[in-house]
Amino acid sequence: MFEFEVTATSGAARTGVVTTPRGTITTPCFMPVGTRAAVQTLTSDDLDMLGAEIILGNTYHLMLRPGADLVEEMGGLHEFMHWSGHVLTDSGGYQIFSLAPKIDDEGALFKSTYDGSTHKLTPEGAVDVQTRLGADIQMVLDVCPPLPSPDSVILSAMDQTHRWAERARTAFVDRPERADGMRAQFGIVQGGLDPSLRERSATHLMEIGFEGYGIGGLSVGEKRTEMLTPLRATTDVLPADQPRYLMGVGDPLSIVEGIANGVDMFDCVLPTRLARHGTVLTTSGRMNMTNARFARDPLPVDPGLATSPIAKWSRAYLRHLLQVKEQSAARMLTLHNIAFLFDLVDQARRAVTDGSIDQLVSRVGEVWG
Amino acid sequence: MFEFEVTATSGAARTGVVTTPRGTITTPCFMPVGTRAAVQTLTSDDLDMLGAEIILGNTYHLMLRPGADLVEEMGGLHEFMHWSGHVLTDSGGYQIFSLAPKIDDEGALFKSTYDGSTHKLTPEGAVDVQTRLGADIQMVLDVCPPLPSPDSVILSAMDQTHRWAERARTAFVDRPERADGMRAQFGIVQGGLDPSLRERSATHLMEIGFEGYGIGGLSVGEKRTEMLTPLRATTDVLPADQPRYLMGVGDPLSIVEGIANGVDMFDCVLPTRLARHGTVLTTSGRMNMTNARFARDPLPVDPGLATSPIAKWSRAYLRHLLQVKEQSAARMLTLHNIAFLFDLVDQARRAVTDGSIDQLVSRVGEVWG
Repeated sequence: MFEFEVTATSGAARTGVVTTPRGTITTPCFMPVGTRAAVQTLTSDDLDMLGAEIILGNTYHLMLRPGADLVEEMGGLHEFMHWSGHVLTDSGGYQIFSLAPKIDDEGALFKSTYDGSTHKLTPEGAVDVQTRLGADIQMVLDVCPPLPSPDSVILSAMDQTHRWAERARTAFVDRPERADGMRAQFGIVQGGLDPSLRERSATHLMEIGFEGYGIGGLSVGEKRTEMLTPLRATTDVLPADQPRYLMGVGDPLSIVEGIANGVDMFDCVLPTRLARHGTVLTTSGRMNMTNARFARDPLPVDPGLATSPIAKWSRAYLRHLLQVKEQSAARMLTLHNIAFLFDLVDQARRAVTDGSIDQLVSRVGEVWG
Repeated sequence: MFEFEVTATSGAARTGVVTTPRGTITTPCFMPVGTRAAVQTLTSDDLDMLGAEIILGNTYHLMLRPGADLVEEMGGLHEFMHWSGHVLTDSGGYQIFSLAPKIDDEGALFKSTYDGSTHKLTPEGAVDVQTRLGADIQMVLDVCPPLPSPDSVILSAMDQTHRWAERARTAFVDRPERADGMRAQFGIVQGGLDPSLRERSATHLMEIGFEGYGIGGLSVGEKRTEMLTPLRATTDVLPADQPRYLMGVGDPLSIVEGIANGVDMFDCVLPTRLARHGTVLTTSGRMNMTNARFARDPLPVDPGLATSPIAKWSRAYLRHLLQVKEQSAARMLTLHNIAFLFDLVDQARRAVTDGSIDQLVSRVGEVWG
């Protein structure tokens, strides 16, 4: 079944291992985003080479292209992508709410960005789609308001999220597929920046009961420093023996601060999106490799990250590939950026074990703060 | 030094091994085109995985972006790309002649497609640029008229090619870099479709003397079947103990027909260009993977090519990636198409050894004729 074992703690921070019938996920972990059954520019062989144990899939995109039925017919996302690691799927809600959907208590009515066709996503429908996709970890459909939003919007989004979470849980536990023990479902905590709402939301979701908990509605417009208080208010309430996933957060400082505050899992399009724009994450900060100052630079992209999968190529070569618009450059920078964040969570795991997580936060803050 | 050993013959066809200080090249061989210091969508790791022993670089593009000086400063193409196999560079002439250059006896004056700047390429300049690029095998600057062209154009192009070949050879043997034995230079036979001109051209170039011979001016507009007579007229004259390279030819049937007629080396953008347009070369012929009939097809791209590096993924998955414009698809199809042509020349090598090259030509002709 789905198990989570905490292997070390240091203050609120912890390391752990999620065990499923598919394998293990060492936490804290960063999940690369595989929007359309692929992490952009990469194959599943690349993900193996990077040592990825879990990736994220986007339900919104997959239900429209190629469609959940087709993915199910091809054996689910793992077979389709030929990927033996874990897949967590979002509910589709986050993308749908950017399309100004018509929301009622039943669900969200939206138009496809692919062909303009109309679709309705309900809490039950999101469970159904994610089950067809074969996700190892499903997320419930939630309402995620941007920040800042009026208190009334935050409150009503939280209440709707709770009602939908109950229906999603009922739909999930009723599915026969759950019997194989391959499926877990995470609730999502909302409540904006208000610590008391966050506590209320976490408590409510724990009463419903899930295999783990997403922390939503953060990193949606607020300052990075505003995130920490509501985040800590949430993790202080959530069960110590279940995984916590801070949704959509992937900048290096937020990752280590999140870990210091008790988060186990992260996802973000940052490393993949930046790579496609020629930007790399390095131990010295962000660098745009298209910059002319790299034209004759024989150094590797990040001399501070010897394990970068692209360490053998020079900045001059990468800059040249970007200049002449070679597609390979986007893949190479993507490999590097994901390796950089994997190395960062590795460092954080070691820091939790040896009690130096605060020093790691300070050190990362000096570069990324 | 640069050596070529014929290891088996069957009629005009032969197998062989080129040995250089860098390593060996088993012939017949297909050379993927690495236009801008990269085979499009691939890294040098991919080329190693495919088993490539030699790739082609385009002097025209490299002299303009990033520039021969920069490549030289970074240690040459091999260091720049981090590629330990061989590199053959063309002279730049083929690209330049498509830009309607001003040609006189000295060389060709052309405008850069990158920024409109004016450049002159001479036979000596082409040697200089290719030497700076660090090519293992250089090609002389030639004049390559399209087909059909008036006899007078064919004749004057051949004569100009011969005069330039003499100057190129003089420039090449004078270079101190040649002393390291890493550099070879191939002359280029012209003469259109006329067998007697082909013989004259081959004889003239042999009198100058090169480490190998390119066969140019074919596959430039004529029918495939028109190519064979002038091709055979050329290979019948060229030295048996030196390699022969049929320039710009890469369709499967022309490759095996070329091998049957004594050719050792081929290059073509076909496999890489087709891949970027969603088309694959298979044992059953060309297939465009974007076709809706592949939407639910669980088979690998080419069940007849078990060694395809993308055999683990289904046609349905590849079609999906193409539909949603995932960059990874272009790389995956490129890997397949190159592997397909590598497998084809492998088959041809075995067929030369066991005397069945004519049967292979027939079999390939049934699919590709």
